[in-house]
Amino acid sequence: MSTRGVSVVGVGMIPFGKYPERSLADLAWPAVKAALADAGAAPKEIDAAYCGAAFAGMLAGQRILGRIGLTGIPVVNVENACSSSAAALREAVLAVRSGESDVALVIGVEKLSKFGGGTIPLEEEDWEVRQGLLMPALYAMRAQRYMHEHGLTREQLAAVAVKNRKHGALNPDAQMRKPVTLDEVLASRPVAEPFTLLQCCPAGDGAAAVVLCASTLARRFRRDPITVAASHLASGKFVPGFRDMTTPEITVRCVKEAYEEAGLGPQDLDVVELHDAFTIAELIYYDAFGLCERGTAGEYLASGATTFGGEVVVNPSGGLLAKGHPVGATGAAQVVEIVRQLRGEAGERQVDGAKVGLTHATGGGIAGFDHGACAIHVLTR
Amino acid sequence: MSTRGVSVVGVGMIPFGKYPERSLADLAWPAVKAALADAGAAPKEIDAAYCGAAFAGMLAGQRILGRIGLTGIPVVNVENACSSSAAALREAVLAVRSGESDVALVIGVEKLSKFGGGTIPLEEEDWEVRQGLLMPALYAMRAQRYMHEHGLTREQLAAVAVKNRKHGALNPDAQMRKPVTLDEVLASRPVAEPFTLLQCCPAGDGAAAVVLCASTLARRFRRDPITVAASHLASGKFVPGFRDMTTPEITVRCVKEAYEEAGLGPQDLDVVELHDAFTIAELIYYDAFGLCERGTAGEYLASGATTFGGEVVVNPSGGLLAKGHPVGATGAAQVVEIVRQLRGEAGERQVDGAKVGLTHATGGGIAGFDHGACAIHVLTR
Repeated sequence: MSTRGVSVVGVGMIPFGKYPERSLADLAWPAVKAALADAGAAPKEIDAAYCGAAFAGMLAGQRILGRIGLTGIPVVNVENACSSSAAALREAVLAVRSGESDVALVIGVEKLSKFGGGTIPLEEEDWEVRQGLLMPALYAMRAQRYMHEHGLTREQLAAVAVKNRKHGALNPDAQMRKPVTLDEVLASRPVAEPFTLLQCCPAGDGAAAVVLCASTLARRFRRDPITVAASHLASGKFVPGFRDMTTPEITVRCVKEAYEEAGLGPQDLDVVELHDAFTIAELIYYDAFGLCERGTAGEYLASGATTFGGEVVVNPSGGLLAKGHPVGATGAAQVVEIVRQLRGEAGERQVDGAKVGLTHATGGGIAGFDHGACAIHVLTR
Repeated sequence: MSTRGVSVVGVGMIPFGKYPERSLADLAWPAVKAALADAGAAPKEIDAAYCGAAFAGMLAGQRILGRIGLTGIPVVNVENACSSSAAALREAVLAVRSGESDVALVIGVEKLSKFGGGTIPLEEEDWEVRQGLLMPALYAMRAQRYMHEHGLTREQLAAVAVKNRKHGALNPDAQMRKPVTLDEVLASRPVAEPFTLLQCCPAGDGAAAVVLCASTLARRFRRDPITVAASHLASGKFVPGFRDMTTPEITVRCVKEAYEEAGLGPQDLDVVELHDAFTIAELIYYDAFGLCERGTAGEYLASGATTFGGEVVVNPSGGLLAKGHPVGATGAAQVVEIVRQLRGEAGERQVDGAKVGLTHATGGGIAGFDHGACAIHVLTR
């Protein structure tokens, strides 16, 4: 069966950071207003809303939209760990494709400052977590393994943070706007060997919003709609026996399916926002996306291929390491960045001539890979 | 545009009750297995899953499906307070209509026993909650107002509990299986005037699951598929100034839209599962659904119209008052009951010749009606 095309016509976000005095609704409504204004859409034109958050409590979307009088419409709250608002976006895409919605709003929001710092709380039912296998420890093991298998050096690993902090310094919406040197990264406080503090994304609060619609309606809102060429979601698969720690099975499979849906491949990408929760993650995903030969991600980054002027600019926003990672807000914020890049509105961090972008939000799946969620969107102009 | 029809081909649930020793995943997977067996579907035939829960923590659906090896597929966790799994069902319906999914699984699950009893925790940001306006108090005010406006008596109100406990006594999956007399209801412990304990739904744990598919594929699974004639979701609208406490705006609007989508009206309903969290709720919804003249719900119930042999049997499962109300599980469990009724599989509580059924799950919206969510499904055979 044929379904409707979907386009993004509005984006907005608040600068990520720490807002302990704001409620969740207070965090999010300015992002929603910005996205509506960006689309030139009145609240009454929105016929469905999806709110992605991981730690939001009940009816977050309704609480947010109540603040701006956008009530009555179907509102669905989606939780999928770090990919919550990316999964919410996919639900909105399906609602438009199904004909149920013409113009939908997606919100991503999180308030991590309410937890008072440290790593985010995880499910006690996970025995891995009870053994201390929190996210920094898990990714540290992956980093050790990558270094062992492929000869990645500590300096090559730390260079991810240098690049993304350099990018984030150009982004007014980034939580960490100060560039850092390789020495500063390596000398920062140890967290989990080989990670130092600057190789871990910061905790923070944030919100982002996206307006999308049936492509046939897009030019009502803007002359430069961005097409959703692929909207893909996967959960992890259990792998019995030996687990290849440097192959993120869920991302490898999800990106393959997303490429197929969009009818393109890694060589077509101009700009990517990917899930660099820790430095090693960005390198592992270079391999997983097929941006470079497997095991060569350290050299690929060192070549300049993934910064401004390179083959494909990865995390021009600063990524999770510099823009910040308020869990539920990240997926939507990645889309905000790619849309701005494809429109040519990214200011000092503009990727020249960007036509094809990809977003990648993945989460959960501590050691049991089958518990994860990964959402990938391909956007084109 | 035309979209695909959707049918229900499998249902399953566990008896609602208190299972403090079980994890959320342990509660839910037997319901999922039962629904798959009921559909005659292998796990590998399921291509998408939606999990509705209000207090489940991260990645509940993934944790549940990991237990039975159903991994890899898109899994979306939906939170919409008391209508969480009803909203999850609607997302699954849209996924099938959009062509993204052929055979989808919906899970509703909740473990309230982890809170140790009493009323469920609500958002502290709601100033109404901070003032003590918890659900029993809110519905008690509505009851007082209905009594004042329409001359409803305490006995007519309490009769809702007598009816639904009578129904629940016939349901092996009900949490409260002991019939009660009017005197017992009135003499039970006071909770919030005019409610006594037996006029409030019990807290408990539970899980329910539904398998649905494109109608064109339904007979692969069963000879008696049930058609989803309407799948509707709404959020509340803010009503400035005077609020009519006996008119649930969100339900009135949502049911009107659901009737329109299904092309039928209240006179066509044979069986209804509605959201009787408190006795008054059932009566207010008789009015809202157009089952009786406004203000006459007490007499309508007393006439026997809504029990076995009556015009439209309401809550044959026992409803929230007797079957129980593990928040996120309720919407899916209502569908389980209606499907069993429409198939003629409801045993001692079978509604003779039932052809058209309706489910109604609504929640949130303490005093601020704009914060609520209401989901209504119309099912036909």
